[in-house]
Amino acid sequence: MTLLSNTSAAEPHRDEPKKKVILFQGDSITDAGRDRKRQSANDPRGLGRGYPMLVAGRLLADAPGLHVHNRGISGNKVPDLQNRWQADCLDVKPDVLSILIGVNDIWHKLNGRYEGTVEDYANGYRELLTQTMEALPDTRIVICEPFVLKCGAVNDKWFPEFDERREAALALANDLKLTVVPFQTMFNKALEDAPPQHWAGDGVHPSLAGHSLMAKTWCEVVLKSK
Amino acid sequence: MTLLSNTSAAEPHRDEPKKKVILFQGDSITDAGRDRKRQSANDPRGLGRGYPMLVAGRLLADAPGLHVHNRGISGNKVPDLQNRWQADCLDVKPDVLSILIGVNDIWHKLNGRYEGTVEDYANGYRELLTQTMEALPDTRIVICEPFVLKCGAVNDKWFPEFDERREAALALANDLKLTVVPFQTMFNKALEDAPPQHWAGDGVHPSLAGHSLMAKTWCEVVLKSK
Repeated sequence: MTLLSNTSAAEPHRDEPKKKVILFQGDSITDAGRDRKRQSANDPRGLGRGYPMLVAGRLLADAPGLHVHNRGISGNKVPDLQNRWQADCLDVKPDVLSILIGVNDIWHKLNGRYEGTVEDYANGYRELLTQTMEALPDTRIVICEPFVLKCGAVNDKWFPEFDERREAALALANDLKLTVVPFQTMFNKALEDAPPQHWAGDGVHPSLAGHSLMAKTWCEVVLKSK
Repeated sequence: MTLLSNTSAAEPHRDEPKKKVILFQGDSITDAGRDRKRQSANDPRGLGRGYPMLVAGRLLADAPGLHVHNRGISGNKVPDLQNRWQADCLDVKPDVLSILIGVNDIWHKLNGRYEGTVEDYANGYRELLTQTMEALPDTRIVICEPFVLKCGAVNDKWFPEFDERREAALALANDLKLTVVPFQTMFNKALEDAPPQHWAGDGVHPSLAGHSLMAKTWCEVVLKSK
């Protein structure tokens, strides 16, 4: 677990090793049916049924000193994260913070429930990240690439704006030198093995197979193993 | 997924590859809060929050042609499996059948709710397995070693009878040449890394960390990888 090491933190007493904290943030894809009243680390009901739970399932076998939290909330866009960031991110003080946000920023716009532009997304996301980097300078931030599969609810109206938002997230990560988990690239490649519906029936919310692929890729990219 | 291959089955049409089926059977450890009304393969709610779900999470990333089912039922002992075996196992026609049973056979006896002996357990389990091998000769059967951690509900009264039942399961697997997943050995070794409560608070039902370790070991033993 060396990639989770937080070398600048004060060393805890040797008999009470500090738990490393991984926090997953995002929308319904991250939320994945979690029980929001259960906020203890490593609680299966609190972690939901998606990739955060499966990442925990891959890591906890070998890392007893790991605390995994999920604070994704269904329907969230960048402004929603901003509104709850102090309590749901900064106060959690993660060693690794993983964020997946963007699909509702366009989906709700297509549904007429939101008016934010690509520029709003990029600017709001940059504010969120710079605020986090200032408040938690030792936290490793992981940007998950927003993705869609071309099936279900996802039609031609989503493009090119979805891709512009996706590229804005990647540009931000590049600019701020943050780790990227390339979920769109991953799903595009997975289409060689199975049709889009296998990975996400509505084009947005992954099946167990989709979440499984996300968890594997997340671990490979962030931990270079598992 | 070569270890899941079922070479004696008729080859399906090349455009409709046969799905490989893994079935998990057992008691509450396997059940793990699954929604029993949801019996479709690879349904996260139908798989529960335990090692069957985490095994699926590890495998589905690389194996689109895999169907994972969970039919564990909380509180079950060997006689309960026998009573529902036709519908809940033979009719499912698994390519791989994984069974974890035994802890309630002693726990319910200690609680005064059951009177079966170690011999009853061994004989009933043998009947179940020979019936299965006759009905499903091409199915690979995996015997999961019953286990307890010495904490919570598990006290000295459990021994040596628990060990006798555990050894009976291993002897059966050896006699019938079935794969064994050595969960007790695995948890005994895991105590070098964390106390028993970390792996199973009541000594019987694993935490997410415990289920994570079980899923990893299951995949390593059964698939020699993952």
